[in-house]
Amino acid sequence: MQNFLFYSPTEVVFGKDAELQTVQEIQKFGGHRVLVVYGGSSAVKSGLLARIEGNLKTKGMEYELLGGVKPNPLLSFARKGVKQATAFGADFILAVGGGSVIDTAKGIAHGAANPDIDIWEFWCGREIEKSLPVGAVLTISAAGSETSNSAVLTNEETGEKRGLPSDFNRPKFAIMNPELTYSLPSFQIACGITDIMMHTLDRYFTPTEGNQLTDGIAEALLRTAIENGRIAMKNHSDYDAMSELMWCGSLSHNGLTGLGAAADFAPHKLSHELSGKFDVAHGAALSAVWEAWATYSWKEKPERFVRYADKVWGIQKEKPEDAVKAGIDATVSYFRSLGMPTCFTELGIGVQNNETLRELAGRVTGNDAYTVGSFKVIHTEDAYCIYQLANH
Amino acid sequence: MQNFLFYSPTEVVFGKDAELQTVQEIQKFGGHRVLVVYGGSSAVKSGLLARIEGNLKTKGMEYELLGGVKPNPLLSFARKGVKQATAFGADFILAVGGGSVIDTAKGIAHGAANPDIDIWEFWCGREIEKSLPVGAVLTISAAGSETSNSAVLTNEETGEKRGLPSDFNRPKFAIMNPELTYSLPSFQIACGITDIMMHTLDRYFTPTEGNQLTDGIAEALLRTAIENGRIAMKNHSDYDAMSELMWCGSLSHNGLTGLGAAADFAPHKLSHELSGKFDVAHGAALSAVWEAWATYSWKEKPERFVRYADKVWGIQKEKPEDAVKAGIDATVSYFRSLGMPTCFTELGIGVQNNETLRELAGRVTGNDAYTVGSFKVIHTEDAYCIYQLANH
Repeated sequence: MQNFLFYSPTEVVFGKDAELQTVQEIQKFGGHRVLVVYGGSSAVKSGLLARIEGNLKTKGMEYELLGGVKPNPLLSFARKGVKQATAFGADFILAVGGGSVIDTAKGIAHGAANPDIDIWEFWCGREIEKSLPVGAVLTISAAGSETSNSAVLTNEETGEKRGLPSDFNRPKFAIMNPELTYSLPSFQIACGITDIMMHTLDRYFTPTEGNQLTDGIAEALLRTAIENGRIAMKNHSDYDAMSELMWCGSLSHNGLTGLGAAADFAPHKLSHELSGKFDVAHGAALSAVWEAWATYSWKEKPERFVRYADKVWGIQKEKPEDAVKAGIDATVSYFRSLGMPTCFTELGIGVQNNETLRELAGRVTGNDAYTVGSFKVIHTEDAYCIYQLANH
Repeated sequence: MQNFLFYSPTEVVFGKDAELQTVQEIQKFGGHRVLVVYGGSSAVKSGLLARIEGNLKTKGMEYELLGGVKPNPLLSFARKGVKQATAFGADFILAVGGGSVIDTAKGIAHGAANPDIDIWEFWCGREIEKSLPVGAVLTISAAGSETSNSAVLTNEETGEKRGLPSDFNRPKFAIMNPELTYSLPSFQIACGITDIMMHTLDRYFTPTEGNQLTDGIAEALLRTAIENGRIAMKNHSDYDAMSELMWCGSLSHNGLTGLGAAADFAPHKLSHELSGKFDVAHGAALSAVWEAWATYSWKEKPERFVRYADKVWGIQKEKPEDAVKAGIDATVSYFRSLGMPTCFTELGIGVQNNETLRELAGRVTGNDAYTVGSFKVIHTEDAYCIYQLANH
């Protein structure tokens, strides 16, 4: 087991009517002037935003609204939010939505606490020394941003999509009512399930040996997400299934499923470049590259894929390579059963020419300025080969 | 799934040489004047205390030492610590030791922040409104107090051993270096394994249906503790085994293994009364009552014991009652293999007369002022019957 640091201080308020505790939580963490960030019309239509506004008014809280966050959230929108938060004098940022909204709220919090610094500098490596507190009312089970230390923004001027890991990204609280996810379209639920699985798989496939508890937790999480994902796709109002998915989403990305081991995250990096260039959904970009990554990488450590097939899918085979293949196939079939793409054509970006693949591969590694991945260390040429495998 | 609140803000610094980060962590959480609380001679002999003192001196921190915490820590000792902390003007309490030391440090922190209140009042239900920050350098894998919200003290005037649940009991940080546990006597390692298992089992046996992720995590933790417990008992210096046990200890009691379900904790309550009256080790008192509790309670929900036998011990039987029995037997055999007692005689308190059993049973339930347990709701008469079953 490798040395590790585990810090997940977010207070989780989970269950029916949890959103009624929003203001109480904001006050607990010192908020008085709240910028409420949300996405499109669903938070309005569902009445959730009105309930939260009612809650804020009743308790005499000052607040302003900022709607319009889009999936693959934009740096320019976060910068706009920083201006509004600063003008309003916000001391707390409340995100009402999914990963994109929460990541945007994190960006706004960093900017509002550091008005003289352009926030993209933090995404380019500048250390964060202070930020405003952020809280989240979650409306989709997926990204885990409600407890994670990461936030992803896309710089539309450069086409780069970048993640920023920092403990300042940990929300103070996360309000998680599974009923708030009932009204999601099937595609979004499917993207969420994929995202949950991939956050876990990108930690599970590691070169580090011997992390029994971490592995056991990751495998339990994967089995739970797979089984309840099937139920949730048939019935969006199954409380238990939607609850399991919501809790899986948080635990998949708060660090717990990869402690003591080197994380891989190559599929995430490969998919980020696709989302950045083609504006495709995060979950869809992940499922579209995973088979190619797995097919290209399994030989580094076949026994890890054999274990995966056994513990997650219940598949045993006499020959290790058969087990590896069966585990990969089971995963790909599951993605397909969710309606998720497993190659570029299914992703809707068509077959790309080699020049585009070279460009994407270069971005993955900063043209070999660094490598990504740890299970299989990925250089530009590897990224190109993986993109080629997915390019059908 | 039931509504739940999950809050586990403790920063875990895990691995080799982790104790070298102690002062850095104290400073991070605002400490300047530190009361260092420890137990007996092992922290001195091992050189750990000297290393931490060296670390404190180098960084120019003011500190005082308070050694002498005993297992089943006493209220009177904690009161003494409150006086010292107050006289010294401590603003941070550092525990160097196991559960007893950490629980004592928590008590001292509550008292030092509230010098006009006798700390036992908090253990009798008075709400805590403020406390001092506590950090822990852990030297035994067991109680989970390094991340838990609980602290247990024994009032030697009344013979009562009481737990206090409060978020003010959450340490700010936990330094966890598995190598610090190499020098423990076998009996203490065995007590720790038992304690880890029981913290998990006392949540796992619940009347609540359908908590798939929580169940999966609990089962993974139990399998990991059992397997690595076997290795650890043979070789105290097996880094991976000692690491797994240490991390199991924390996760067994930070709340994660029981989320969304009613906790039981009847075996804990039954064993606390034994420790309070006979001053026996916590882990030993737990293993001495568990078989009796399980034998008395399984009929409430046999399918839960059938699942336990299958998922934790890999035991399947045609008849449910055979599986139940085999699962209980496997647990008891495992406790025996660790050298842990499984009845009163083995616990070293001999066979008790019925009057003593009645007295103990009355204490468990405040003479039927309340019940304990949820899997099987335990009244005084039930507690008496369970004690009778263990009384051989």
